[in-house]
Amino acid sequence: MLSIYTDEHFMKMALAEAKKAALAGEIPIGAVLVHQNKVLAKSHNQTELLQDVTAHAEILAITSGTEFLGSKYLKNCTLYVTLEPCPMCAGALKWSQLSKIVYAAEDEKNGFMKYGKDLLHPKTHVEYGLLSEESSALLKKFFESKRKNLKSKFQ
Amino acid sequence: MLSIYTDEHFMKMALAEAKKAALAGEIPIGAVLVHQNKVLAKSHNQTELLQDVTAHAEILAITSGTEFLGSKYLKNCTLYVTLEPCPMCAGALKWSQLSKIVYAAEDEKNGFMKYGKDLLHPKTHVEYGLLSEESSALLKKFFESKRKNLKSKFQ
Repeated sequence: MLSIYTDEHFMKMALAEAKKAALAGEIPIGAVLVHQNKVLAKSHNQTELLQDVTAHAEILAITSGTEFLGSKYLKNCTLYVTLEPCPMCAGALKWSQLSKIVYAAEDEKNGFMKYGKDLLHPKTHVEYGLLSEESSALLKKFFESKRKNLKSKFQ
Repeated sequence: MLSIYTDEHFMKMALAEAKKAALAGEIPIGAVLVHQNKVLAKSHNQTELLQDVTAHAEILAITSGTEFLGSKYLKNCTLYVTLEPCPMCAGALKWSQLSKIVYAAEDEKNGFMKYGKDLLHPKTHVEYGLLSEESSALLKKFFESKRKNLKSKFQ
């Protein structure tokens, strides 16, 4: 039997969240937290809106998800996120004992992977690269538009 | 002129927060965020109360402090915390561009230092060791009491 609950299905949902972020002037990163094919949380970066550096998509998803589950831990949960998490988010996911993470684009500058996979919990299964081109294109477009606005401001 | 606004003064305040955590059954870690000798936030670990793994003293202090300042950044701010921050908290402090951190006890198991100082922002000045014995004693007492309770539960 075919299932609609594929990794691609949920990553597309995370990309839709990233697009919402871009429309709100936020860096376009989105996340979806799933437990047994049920979406517990959809979130996007809100650091500008909340003026809070901790308001990354992943942190907002963790907080909503654990609130929903009534548990501190995200066991049997998968997080789909459009960009490789930063060390702050990886550290938060470690504490949550997340079962699986799938991230789209890699982030060589700010991603956790340069410190090694053990920033995550040993139980967390890691996959990446799914729809990475779509995610990268969204980020590229956003920063190009930001630079253009900045340039026109000073001309 | 003598000033009461010493690092020790603020670290004692952070230790008082850690004691509040212990009384509430939380791991005793406290933090105080200071801007030009003014306390912006006092916080302690609340992961049990909020059932939220991100509710570390440092994260709560960052969120309160930036809310108070109306800015995402903690420039000219010092964070006093009773235990070496974990990578999640160090990552959050990096995004906040904190000016200075003073932590009491080291945390070999879960501290950020095993990944290197660049988990923090390059602008962040780091000091540690102040009142570390007091902080360690508080943590030791807490975990001993936890183990004792657990033991009596299964006997």
